[in-house]
Amino acid sequence: MKRLNTSPISGAQELLPSAQAVFDNLKEEISGVFHLHGFQNVETPIIDRNEILFAKAGGDTEKQIYRVVKTTESVEDSTESLRFDHTVPLARYIVEHESNLAFPFRVAQIGINFRGERAQKGRFREFYQCDIDVIGRETLPLSYDAQVIATLYEALKKFELPAIRIRINNRKLLSEIINGLGLSDKADAIYGIIDHAEKVPAEKTVAALRELGVPEESVVKITTLINTHGSIEDVAKLDIVDIESEGFKELESVMSELKAMGVKDAEVDMMIVRGLDYYTGTVFETIVPGYESLGSICSGGRYENLCSNYTDQKFPGVGGSIGLTRLFCIFSENGLLKEGSEAAPVDVAIIPMDRAMMEASYKLAESIRSEGKSVDVISTDKKLGDKMKHAARVAKFGIVVGEDEVISGHFEIKNFATGESAPLEI
Amino acid sequence: MKRLNTSPISGAQELLPSAQAVFDNLKEEISGVFHLHGFQNVETPIIDRNEILFAKAGGDTEKQIYRVVKTTESVEDSTESLRFDHTVPLARYIVEHESNLAFPFRVAQIGINFRGERAQKGRFREFYQCDIDVIGRETLPLSYDAQVIATLYEALKKFELPAIRIRINNRKLLSEIINGLGLSDKADAIYGIIDHAEKVPAEKTVAALRELGVPEESVVKITTLINTHGSIEDVAKLDIVDIESEGFKELESVMSELKAMGVKDAEVDMMIVRGLDYYTGTVFETIVPGYESLGSICSGGRYENLCSNYTDQKFPGVGGSIGLTRLFCIFSENGLLKEGSEAAPVDVAIIPMDRAMMEASYKLAESIRSEGKSVDVISTDKKLGDKMKHAARVAKFGIVVGEDEVISGHFEIKNFATGESAPLEI
Repeated sequence: MKRLNTSPISGAQELLPSAQAVFDNLKEEISGVFHLHGFQNVETPIIDRNEILFAKAGGDTEKQIYRVVKTTESVEDSTESLRFDHTVPLARYIVEHESNLAFPFRVAQIGINFRGERAQKGRFREFYQCDIDVIGRETLPLSYDAQVIATLYEALKKFELPAIRIRINNRKLLSEIINGLGLSDKADAIYGIIDHAEKVPAEKTVAALRELGVPEESVVKITTLINTHGSIEDVAKLDIVDIESEGFKELESVMSELKAMGVKDAEVDMMIVRGLDYYTGTVFETIVPGYESLGSICSGGRYENLCSNYTDQKFPGVGGSIGLTRLFCIFSENGLLKEGSEAAPVDVAIIPMDRAMMEASYKLAESIRSEGKSVDVISTDKKLGDKMKHAARVAKFGIVVGEDEVISGHFEIKNFATGESAPLEI
Repeated sequence: MKRLNTSPISGAQELLPSAQAVFDNLKEEISGVFHLHGFQNVETPIIDRNEILFAKAGGDTEKQIYRVVKTTESVEDSTESLRFDHTVPLARYIVEHESNLAFPFRVAQIGINFRGERAQKGRFREFYQCDIDVIGRETLPLSYDAQVIATLYEALKKFELPAIRIRINNRKLLSEIINGLGLSDKADAIYGIIDHAEKVPAEKTVAALRELGVPEESVVKITTLINTHGSIEDVAKLDIVDIESEGFKELESVMSELKAMGVKDAEVDMMIVRGLDYYTGTVFETIVPGYESLGSICSGGRYENLCSNYTDQKFPGVGGSIGLTRLFCIFSENGLLKEGSEAAPVDVAIIPMDRAMMEASYKLAESIRSEGKSVDVISTDKKLGDKMKHAARVAKFGIVVGEDEVISGHFEIKNFATGESAPLEI
């Protein structure tokens, strides 16, 4: 008989139960933070219609979309695909359910997305993302920008990383600066250069600006700008920054609100652009100091018109995303995750001496569960020693149920970690 | 500009936030019950390899599999599809990770599966299923059958249905009876007729048995058998049942263990077959009395060889599944779900009088969150009355933060349901 290969697909996560418990716990903690901050959970279908998914996608994203095709269909017949992010289905959801939603709408989405990336280390094709967004109708006050960042900051703290640094910028401010230098016709190209600056040596950035025809004086100012990070005062000192401008005032206000909310690890960083389109105001990325090569672990920003493909109504929003699967994978590999004592995921194993003890074992299990402890009743017909070995592998504590124990009503509970036993009190 | 249709795909669930909260809560409660009973969570990728998914599928299931195809690929190039249940990927998982698992392995899987069903009411193409299984290596004692059923029973109780009835049978017993009647050559066809008996008038069942060439005396015995349900004693009374047979003893033992575990709503039902293959011992279905037309809401059974496509090792198992999305949908429509006070999903809304009150509002929010309550800080620039209206829509309680409150340190908390206010104690 032909034996099939049993490995999971490449680019997806498949964990052993103990690691899965750590992952699930992190997911729940993140969800808990989102909930505490007033974000309501929404789950759109994983499959969406092509006209929705392909409307906003383009270029590389479009090539990465997985279409779903029934065995009896051809690709041309198929009208549906797998979502590649939470934002596109959310825009559809907002317009579809608009009359039943209260705006500003605080929405959380924790779910699986799919991208047909080339399989390579750290690149997932199937992955969890944890998104929050606040969506306004017509307008959305700036305060929500800081609230979104503060909520994501609280969520990231659940990873218990050695440190994190949130890098914040404002696209309006960048635009004002470029315009102030008289370079508005080259704005998109300059954003692209700034966006790439971190990944290339400084000379390459200078060369790219020169090649674009940026005057030497402005090249110096832009490279100084790119390297400016720290407090809002550091930015205010730059002669190309107008502290009365809208962009600067927005950034100043976001930083001040973050301070008021106790977000200690946020700083202004003029190198942050977040791609070429989409975002219109606040933008942010997050790094783990010492592990900068991992890239941004949580990013987002403000967008002024989420639903323009579906409606003339304006829905401005601000949001951000944690790439949970990717973070879990790289943090595990770098030893950055607390492992916990998850090796024995069940609290108590009950070990009946023989089949005659099953009923008493079930009763004891029930009373322990009623106190919120998880219980495995070891029901194999093996020798007591073998049953104890299995119990020690799956549970933190073990209780043997034999005739003497049942008659006396006295049970011993054994701590498998220490080997010590004590009378059970229930 | 062309406006796109914003409806979700057919055959999938898309809920408003208040209903989503009820759904999420049920999902968490079911997960909690599984955990309490010692089941460990496992999540296999949604996408799996065709050789895995198509190996065990066949007929209708194969036609319903969704293949995933990149935009740049043809269907023939694609080697992957969406899983249609939890069992096939679990079998792959068991063999792949066997050396790192402790057997008997109690495993829970709560996730989304996909089937290309024709879209019709109550049929989902994308849906949550909640599965538990206990998998043994080489052997698996019968006690686990009752434990799986008891765990699913506890989970179903979270729906707070008016009543449930678990109907239990044993495939070995059925087989013994058919063999005892000398009809073993017609066994599969007779199983098919019994399996269908509930959906057709009694005359049709009789006619089908006669047409198959079953002697008249046996037709009477089989129709009597089909209508036998209740206690194990009711089955023992039938003259075609050998109470010394393996099948009868297994069924008797499962019923007796369920009683010991306090599962009150279980009964023997000789009409239960669960399809033609796959199951080899215990089989069960669950109905809601008064709503029989909904069909079985939770089913499963014992199978002797889960992983035969991948290995010569024997992995017997017993498991069952709750079709969460389907149940949630039909229970909602039939008014069977407790709605809860989920209309206002946030605990407390903080309403700053003006922007100068933001910092004080954030501090207050932080202290309320530290007690585990969810807080929305209403940050719109609207009039106080409008902010209060929004607050009452999203939260159960509201606290206005103005200069007087901040100076005095005394805040009033308003219960939006009763309209009453009281001093805030924190």
